[in-house]
Amino acid sequence: MKSLFVPVQSDASIKNSSVLYIVLLHYPVKNKSGECIGSAVTNLDLHDIARVAKTYGIKAFYVVTPFDDQKGLVERIVSHWITGTGAKYNPLRGKALKLIKIKDTFLDVVTDIESIENRLPKTVATCAKESKKTISYSKLRGKITDGFPYILAFGTAWGLSKEFIDDTDYILEPIRGVFHYNHLSVRSAVSIILDRLVGEY
Amino acid sequence: MKSLFVPVQSDASIKNSSVLYIVLLHYPVKNKSGECIGSAVTNLDLHDIARVAKTYGIKAFYVVTPFDDQKGLVERIVSHWITGTGAKYNPLRGKALKLIKIKDTFLDVVTDIESIENRLPKTVATCAKESKKTISYSKLRGKITDGFPYILAFGTAWGLSKEFIDDTDYILEPIRGVFHYNHLSVRSAVSIILDRLVGEY
Repeated sequence: MKSLFVPVQSDASIKNSSVLYIVLLHYPVKNKSGECIGSAVTNLDLHDIARVAKTYGIKAFYVVTPFDDQKGLVERIVSHWITGTGAKYNPLRGKALKLIKIKDTFLDVVTDIESIENRLPKTVATCAKESKKTISYSKLRGKITDGFPYILAFGTAWGLSKEFIDDTDYILEPIRGVFHYNHLSVRSAVSIILDRLVGEY
Repeated sequence: MKSLFVPVQSDASIKNSSVLYIVLLHYPVKNKSGECIGSAVTNLDLHDIARVAKTYGIKAFYVVTPFDDQKGLVERIVSHWITGTGAKYNPLRGKALKLIKIKDTFLDVVTDIESIENRLPKTVATCAKESKKTISYSKLRGKITDGFPYILAFGTAWGLSKEFIDDTDYILEPIRGVFHYNHLSVRSAVSIILDRLVGEY
């Protein structure tokens, strides 16, 4: 329920011409030992990431989980803020949570975006290790206005599985701080990455 | 428990010469109606903000609350990860949470920093409204390497009270997205603001 309110802007400030989607994966992700697992949904991931997504003009925020109980949890949280008592208490929250779409698999996300955009989206993984596919923030910032839809994929738990990352088009360069410690929550990572790719200041 | 791991960097990458502190205030802040209140501590604020602070080389993360039960809650959470079972489960978390210092008032924070730095810190509020004291990210990024200690103040609930903001040296310009919706969690706001002020990419 914590907000940092900022003033409403005029239409003149709408500069973003990217077609950008984000997905938060609860499967396939790694556990602490590097094994592939399905993780549990965290309530504040939904709120924080939906609010950042709405602020930066993201077209949809996909939550991927194959588990029925977890899908039910996401549906209950979202409906509370869109049509339930939360909608009266804080209508601004529902505007962000409306961006959420629940899918069983990442392939379902790709299929959904292809049906909306009539183009196969480019996929970008967020990950620790650099590889041949690593792309810088400045390069990706340029690319996302090329007319293609782009999906930015974020992993929960200990991050996206290697097999998943190997199948994406690009891997975004890691967020580096100023010291040796670089362990951010996925909520912070999404916030910083969207600001770097779409933010204006 | 969600992490986006990135590789450890060499000493050569330590470029930050700022003397920067952050404070999360639970009093004096506003409620939905604009009244001055004391808010409750949120567990994930401590984790997310401590991890961002550690990543970006912040000297300390002050948590201000005048309430004994809330101070006790913060102490229990922090000690779990520094000396309790959490320290064995994930030692990296304790390294971030060690940055937390609990204080009754903002004045106690200023006094503590003055005793550490032998200089009175400059204070910067994060807030919605621009005023004569509003400072841009680029200007503040230049200033924070001037040898003075700086405190960045963040409010919980519906933001810092007007009286508090009036007493600070500067007000940082609001985070603007690309559309009319600009309502971020304090966790996202801290992440984006520290990246803008200290981040290198």
